[in-house]
Amino acid sequence: MAQYTPPLRDMQFVMHEVLNVVDELKQLPKHADIDADTINAVLEEGGKFAAEVVFPLNQVGDQEGCTLDRQTHEVKAPTGFKEAYKQYVEGGWPALSCDPEYGGQGLPVTVNQCFYEMLNSASQAWTMYPGLSHGAYEALHAHGTPEQKRLYLPKLTSGEWTGTMCLTEPHCGTDLGLLRTKAEPLPDGTYRITGQKIFISAGEHDLAENIVHLVLARLPDAPAGSKGISLFVVPKYLVNADGSLGERNKIYCAGLEHKMGIHGNATAQMVLDGAIGTLVGEPNRGLQAMFVMMNAARLGVGVQSLGLTEVAYQNAVAYAKDRLQMRALSGPKAPDKPADPIIVHPDVRKMLLTARAYAEGGRALTIWTALQIDKELSSDDEQVRKDCADLVALVTPIVKAFLTDNGWIATSHCLQVFGGHGYIREWGMEQFVRDARINMIYEGTNTVQSLDLLGRKVLADNGAKLKKFGKLVQEFVEEEGVNEAMQEFVNPLADLGEKVTKLTMEIGMKAMGNPDEVGAAAVDYLRVCGHLVFAYFWARMAKVALAKADSGDPFYKAKLATARFYFAKLLPETAALIRSARAGLKPLMEMDEALF
Amino acid sequence: MAQYTPPLRDMQFVMHEVLNVVDELKQLPKHADIDADTINAVLEEGGKFAAEVVFPLNQVGDQEGCTLDRQTHEVKAPTGFKEAYKQYVEGGWPALSCDPEYGGQGLPVTVNQCFYEMLNSASQAWTMYPGLSHGAYEALHAHGTPEQKRLYLPKLTSGEWTGTMCLTEPHCGTDLGLLRTKAEPLPDGTYRITGQKIFISAGEHDLAENIVHLVLARLPDAPAGSKGISLFVVPKYLVNADGSLGERNKIYCAGLEHKMGIHGNATAQMVLDGAIGTLVGEPNRGLQAMFVMMNAARLGVGVQSLGLTEVAYQNAVAYAKDRLQMRALSGPKAPDKPADPIIVHPDVRKMLLTARAYAEGGRALTIWTALQIDKELSSDDEQVRKDCADLVALVTPIVKAFLTDNGWIATSHCLQVFGGHGYIREWGMEQFVRDARINMIYEGTNTVQSLDLLGRKVLADNGAKLKKFGKLVQEFVEEEGVNEAMQEFVNPLADLGEKVTKLTMEIGMKAMGNPDEVGAAAVDYLRVCGHLVFAYFWARMAKVALAKADSGDPFYKAKLATARFYFAKLLPETAALIRSARAGLKPLMEMDEALF
Repeated sequence: MAQYTPPLRDMQFVMHEVLNVVDELKQLPKHADIDADTINAVLEEGGKFAAEVVFPLNQVGDQEGCTLDRQTHEVKAPTGFKEAYKQYVEGGWPALSCDPEYGGQGLPVTVNQCFYEMLNSASQAWTMYPGLSHGAYEALHAHGTPEQKRLYLPKLTSGEWTGTMCLTEPHCGTDLGLLRTKAEPLPDGTYRITGQKIFISAGEHDLAENIVHLVLARLPDAPAGSKGISLFVVPKYLVNADGSLGERNKIYCAGLEHKMGIHGNATAQMVLDGAIGTLVGEPNRGLQAMFVMMNAARLGVGVQSLGLTEVAYQNAVAYAKDRLQMRALSGPKAPDKPADPIIVHPDVRKMLLTARAYAEGGRALTIWTALQIDKELSSDDEQVRKDCADLVALVTPIVKAFLTDNGWIATSHCLQVFGGHGYIREWGMEQFVRDARINMIYEGTNTVQSLDLLGRKVLADNGAKLKKFGKLVQEFVEEEGVNEAMQEFVNPLADLGEKVTKLTMEIGMKAMGNPDEVGAAAVDYLRVCGHLVFAYFWARMAKVALAKADSGDPFYKAKLATARFYFAKLLPETAALIRSARAGLKPLMEMDEALF
Repeated sequence: MAQYTPPLRDMQFVMHEVLNVVDELKQLPKHADIDADTINAVLEEGGKFAAEVVFPLNQVGDQEGCTLDRQTHEVKAPTGFKEAYKQYVEGGWPALSCDPEYGGQGLPVTVNQCFYEMLNSASQAWTMYPGLSHGAYEALHAHGTPEQKRLYLPKLTSGEWTGTMCLTEPHCGTDLGLLRTKAEPLPDGTYRITGQKIFISAGEHDLAENIVHLVLARLPDAPAGSKGISLFVVPKYLVNADGSLGERNKIYCAGLEHKMGIHGNATAQMVLDGAIGTLVGEPNRGLQAMFVMMNAARLGVGVQSLGLTEVAYQNAVAYAKDRLQMRALSGPKAPDKPADPIIVHPDVRKMLLTARAYAEGGRALTIWTALQIDKELSSDDEQVRKDCADLVALVTPIVKAFLTDNGWIATSHCLQVFGGHGYIREWGMEQFVRDARINMIYEGTNTVQSLDLLGRKVLADNGAKLKKFGKLVQEFVEEEGVNEAMQEFVNPLADLGEKVTKLTMEIGMKAMGNPDEVGAAAVDYLRVCGHLVFAYFWARMAKVALAKADSGDPFYKAKLATARFYFAKLLPETAALIRSARAGLKPLMEMDEALF
């Protein structure tokens, strides 16, 4: 059986010792009263909920999956999922960082971020039921009419209802401009919506009494392509003016997908057979409104893989300390035992430390990102809001793609530590790998993320957003330039920063000749930027750990050792990535399509 | 539904245009009469069998799995597996490269290699039933008594019986020195064997009338550790002196594992409850005898991933040409369609070409290796036999680990090309990924392979075997040194050759100070050597393709483009690997075990 312990100490380290989130949050009027004790207490309780209520359901959910009743179109989630969700609602967890105006607790996004990491360690499939509600909440909060907000936000905040995103259709995923679902205006101001959607996560289930679908569709007079898409809210049950449930809306689950992983979550084919919906935001500007939800979801997907990386690491460490096999090449380390625990073997440590460095680096990045979102949402300084928005826009594709690629690598390494047992279902390791695989695909494939980063976020504004992050790096490098003990971290960080600048300019020049050069370099480029971001946070963490290395708390020794491992063994990947990126487009396009 | 076309043209290219296998084989007395037409005809038929009989069973096997009857201890393979195996036996396929003395067809191992690649593309799980028989055949052929050979080899050759390797026990996989299964001598010269084995592939099934288990166990007076292990042949049904089946032996399947993949193959827990066996080879020297089988199996595992890489590639290409999504960044390529086929996007091509370059490079390496085995087995020149044996010993861990790591990367990329559909079971792509994952683990984990390469094959004989391969590289580099068109391939090959020499010496020096340095560098080192070997074969293939580029046959254009892709986009990985290897042991051992 797998195990999980919430990494509260490391979260506290990142929040309170590295990022000083309390000081930063206190400057925001909305969070002027926040304090570390509150944050820690909430996360301690949240960790208990994740580890004790959700985690025991993870393997059950994988083995049972969801079942569709084709008569009623109702879906039953695996055993225990509904009961855990009831506890989640009763505990007030959905409301953590929601607006008090709609019943929320108004805590910082930073706190919710840590809570969601733990939920995803406990069970990605379960967490996807409430996970999408928050994105639906945000899209309606930003673009909904007062009436829509009044009807839907309190119920999404309480968790009594959950949300979905209905984008994909059989013939279009990445390319939403091709979508065909139609919305006809009705005399009462609502719309009759007809079409078919696929891959709708948590599209139908028995956890909540109503499901709030956000649906992309075309109005009759809509222009072709992505500029003719509008956003609608389409509830499973129509909602009366007093907020009570009305009749069953004509949006049905027509089938569930058989998937590689996340079996516990219902991936639904949804048929809209003249379902009634209301328009969200402006006609034909649905994609803009939906992007509020998609950006939240993209960050959420990165956090899914962060959660899987952490839980896979914890289990691999426990096994590596327990499993006796072979002697260390340098001689027995446990001579009283029939063999040494496999953690003595350098390559086993390399696999473990890879997962650890990716988990802890990802934790620092995602908590920092959440803090920037808090500032973007609540600062009273417009420039701060703008800067934070730019930084969040820049790192969103990195959080999504870099963390999910890392999660794939890390969970696979952790499986490998178990040898043959890692391949056996009962140990739980192979489920982490299967679950992690979807994260590289949905909410925009990692290729799409890389094009978003290089094309839209970097080149389209002449690197202005990238420079904002570069300034943070530069300030840190200059600050630590005189600190001899920090040179082992600062020098490679500064070096990589320069390389990124140079690489960005090179690609930008080539792209002026042929825009396909962006597509050729983007995936390598994103991974290089991911390492730049990680190197920055690892250097900052190393600084704190160095200062406290003699404190007697072994936590700092471990942090420092992991930082050194990261710089010695993982950062060198950039050497290969930069070469591959610089090799450019030609080697990819030389072969005629017919010859593939 | 997935699809598969045997890559006969590429096999013929490697055999007849690059390696000139017929000329080489004709020099061996045993194969003096071989000709290209025979080889091609056999493989054409073999490809038909793989594609038409075996391939349609692959997804069925994954979905049904195997079932154990706990009353009778009998296992039923998935629907159609038994019937396909019957056709396999009736077609004489098991006998392809077996000794004519025992009913074999005496064809070269080279031919069998190509056939097995195709079987593994068709279904790894099905192919594992006959696949282990050949290893059992080889172990008995090399170490069996005349009586054992007489009783077992004809039936293994015909395929009427299949074979297994019973090594692993619950507490020992890699570390066979810990094994506990006991063998007591009986007055009639046989042994009574008692113990428990796990992870026995094809350990029990309904495909053949008897199963020949090769079992490692300890004699009563055996020394502790790996020097006290003996090898026994333990048939499911005892064999009478006339070769007919006797009574049921006390070796039973007690359970089947639930696995991530290869569901169609029965991974059995085997209980030996006083089963009767006979000794193979010398007492206490069972591991040496078993290594004949294990080396064959290790090469076989590399070929499993080669097969998966090829079939995943073919399916991803078909999808990438068919799926319309987005426009090329450089402008529409299919303006008459609603969107461009995704093969226009550079990163889609990068994923496809990665799989293609790994498949074609792996094919060249494995066919070359098989040719060296033919020469090792049948040359009348002792020095040739010795040289070939050394080369095979050197590349065996590379074939096993490099090809299986590549298979994991490639099948995952091919899944990614399908976007969300890649994650859905019906498309078949995620099965390739799940099946590929075991290949990095069994028959010695890839970490164990890397220690075998760096520790035993390279450092233990002061690089003598590595130099034999290096000589091939050097000769080719010198030969092509004046060929201007070849410089783009020869220069990076020569450069990498020098880097490998330097890296080997560096690690060797460090290892004298601390043997754990070998363990710290070995995995990176193996991948660097894998690229050296691939660069050598890609350069040789490029040479042939260059010479025929103007022949009008587009095959050579595609080969050249793939070679260029390999050198531009995949070989640069060595820059990162060498840095990581050189970073050495310290970053791995700095953290105290308790702090993990």
